[in-house]
Amino acid sequence: MKLTVCRKEYFNAAHRLYNPKWSDKKNSDIFGKCNNPNYHGHNYELVVKLTGDINPDTGYVYDMKALSVLIKTNVVDKFDHKNLNLDTNEFKKLIPTAENIAVVIWNILRKQIDNKYDLKIQLYETKKNFVEYPAQQ
Amino acid sequence: MKLTVCRKEYFNAAHRLYNPKWSDKKNSDIFGKCNNPNYHGHNYELVVKLTGDINPDTGYVYDMKALSVLIKTNVVDKFDHKNLNLDTNEFKKLIPTAENIAVVIWNILRKQIDNKYDLKIQLYETKKNFVEYPAQQ
Amino acid sequence: MKLTVCRKEYFNAAHRLYNPKWSDKKNSDIFGKCNNPNYHGHNYELVVKLTGDINPDTGYVYDMKALSVLIKTNVVDKFDHKNLNLDTNEFKKLIPTAENIAVVIWNILRKQIDNKYDLKIQLYETKKNFVEYPAQQ
Amino acid sequence: MKLTVCRKEYFNAAHRLYNPKWSDKKNSDIFGKCNNPNYHGHNYELVVKLTGDINPDTGYVYDMKALSVLIKTNVVDKFDHKNLNLDTNEFKKLIPTAENIAVVIWNILRKQIDNKYDLKIQLYETKKNFVEYPAQQ
Amino acid sequence: MKLTVCRKEYFNAAHRLYNPKWSDKKNSDIFGKCNNPNYHGHNYELVVKLTGDINPDTGYVYDMKALSVLIKTNVVDKFDHKNLNLDTNEFKKLIPTAENIAVVIWNILRKQIDNKYDLKIQLYETKKNFVEYPAQQ
Amino acid sequence: MKLTVCRKEYFNAAHRLYNPKWSDKKNSDIFGKCNNPNYHGHNYELVVKLTGDINPDTGYVYDMKALSVLIKTNVVDKFDHKNLNLDTNEFKKLIPTAENIAVVIWNILRKQIDNKYDLKIQLYETKKNFVEYPAQQ
Repeated sequence: MKLTVCRKEYFNAAHRLYNPKWSDKKNSDIFGKCNNPNYHGHNYELVVKLTGDINPDTGYVYDMKALSVLIKTNVVDKFDHKNLNLDTNEFKKLIPTAENIAVVIWNILRKQIDNKYDLKIQLYETKKNFVEYPAQQ
Repeated sequence: MKLTVCRKEYFNAAHRLYNPKWSDKKNSDIFGKCNNPNYHGHNYELVVKLTGDINPDTGYVYDMKALSVLIKTNVVDKFDHKNLNLDTNEFKKLIPTAENIAVVIWNILRKQIDNKYDLKIQLYETKKNFVEYPAQQ
Repeated sequence: MKLTVCRKEYFNAAHRLYNPKWSDKKNSDIFGKCNNPNYHGHNYELVVKLTGDINPDTGYVYDMKALSVLIKTNVVDKFDHKNLNLDTNEFKKLIPTAENIAVVIWNILRKQIDNKYDLKIQLYETKKNFVEYPAQQ
Repeated sequence: MKLTVCRKEYFNAAHRLYNPKWSDKKNSDIFGKCNNPNYHGHNYELVVKLTGDINPDTGYVYDMKALSVLIKTNVVDKFDHKNLNLDTNEFKKLIPTAENIAVVIWNILRKQIDNKYDLKIQLYETKKNFVEYPAQQ
Repeated sequence: MKLTVCRKEYFNAAHRLYNPKWSDKKNSDIFGKCNNPNYHGHNYELVVKLTGDINPDTGYVYDMKALSVLIKTNVVDKFDHKNLNLDTNEFKKLIPTAENIAVVIWNILRKQIDNKYDLKIQLYETKKNFVEYPAQQ
Repeated sequence: MKLTVCRKEYFNAAHRLYNPKWSDKKNSDIFGKCNNPNYHGHNYELVVKLTGDINPDTGYVYDMKALSVLIKTNVVDKFDHKNLNLDTNEFKKLIPTAENIAVVIWNILRKQIDNKYDLKIQLYETKKNFVEYPAQQ
């Protein structure tokens, strides 16, 4: 049976939910306060979950220190203390909802982690709102 | 791949675990302190999880504000600051264990949410006791 | 300089806010949902804080295991899985608000703990509502 | 002896630390990532603490529902989902550090709450950074 | 549909990550600070998850009090306030990583719990590092 | 009025409570499981609180990034992943209770921080046991 190792990291960012194909009124109707043109922000909590076999020599599925460095280098350094809409290429044309941020982070990490590991993401936007990608089947 | 969005809400309620088919002694033996005839209570934490596809126009799987309103209207307003045994129809004949409360809430929400979304519930009775319904397969 | 040691314990109870000197309407106006005649309940978190000098032989201000036993024997066993209004002498004539519960617990513990220790209480009724007694001066 | 009642509320906002009297280089040297011209953001947690006497008729120091409404009306509605630098008068000329935000909130609430109550504020910018105003003496 | 009941318990232990087949230098290179010959320690949080059917007579999948006693007797009493490398048979020849501790606990509990229940374990070594066994399929 | 800024950091360590002036039996009677000769361990959470005036140029009482570095350099690097009894000079002759660890950390930090700032420490040994030094007066 396989085992899942999980690592939590944090980043703080500003964002705005806005669809340029829509009128200002429709944006306001759909996104409410999250549509504020001057942005608002969150403390994001990210949990990265890797599933694989335990290496009998180390007792590790994946070195958690290495996983922490990998997340910081590829995700936290890119998004922490940034405006997701203005400061990142990923959200130039993609609405930075928690859903889309999770998919973007998954795609970034998937390229950095050997495919023998299954990869899942949890992203907390607030204590009350969070997403999981991909969903359990 | 699908994505899961999760929303946490809260309600505070009194309850008593009691099976009317049993003697008082058997009720006390099985349910212990939870059988107190005068009730006790909990701060329940409810996490509602919906799995679906991201709508490319909104970046949402499901509007979390709408999900919050739906949970408050259908679940929190029904159970918050209530005696589950005395004040609700759902537990007139059903023992209000965390397990049964979770199933009742799932059945309530299932009718309110389009079947294209998979629905799961987590219910925390205390920090140390919680349930998930339906179980992962 | 003195040091404060703190111990957290838990109890779950039902209660109702009700003043028998008032009409039902006034009770409902003042206490809202907390006035439900059939009770509701909470997971209470209690922090007991003792201030004193470090005993150089033990490195302790107060043995935390002994403090835990003292709290469980005198407070948790009395209130856990109880209806505060119906099952306890303390709240037969006293409204079981978080404020009054904190004062009652402080008075119970004060008799059990040597007066050379300063005693303070924090009581969380929910994550959003809590009280401290006595107040910092 | 007096008692302190505490109420926690939340708001999410964007901000930037920037002193217009300084060069860009000095701003960057002093404020680091927090100086990002495009803003970043946080989930702020606010604890409002009122100290007073228990009203024997209600068992309350202050009605927590009323305190919650007062905080939401005067603080949360003003700052939630806002850019503190651009969207609020309070931080047009004041750097929105956690310290200054706490003082601003205290000044807002002080005018709304009878002076017979002592008022203190805790403001969490992240889980690791928080401030208390005024300091304990 | 089946339901999962979850119980959280705690234990505090010392450990050291060390592979006797390797040189000291390789141990230090691979395990870093966790290789300290004099040990370090953690507050472990253990979540035990049982999946099964609700018994209609009790409303329980599994009596949580009984589950708590079972975990304390078989796991907490064995590992709490222990040096995992020196004080336990399980880790005499097995490196006490979070991964291996989770598998050991799963194997201990599996023998104590009827096979009609599916069994899963979550083990938190710190707030940022945790493991799940077996992995979701 | 002054303001208090607070910074939380973490370290994981092993320790044993033992008084060399006592018999083994007395050590065991007084310290119980914490007297295990092979050590056990904890995830310590440290909150450092500095009280001072807000610098109007920065809006800071004390730069939190600088405070984090100062704590890491002087406290975390010294105690993290260490055996407090064997690996540190501070606890060669001092019993590493939470009380004594807090006093030691306060003394270390007091030398590094300008005396114009009031300094307080909170140290969590577990979620249920924590200490504050110096005590509020």
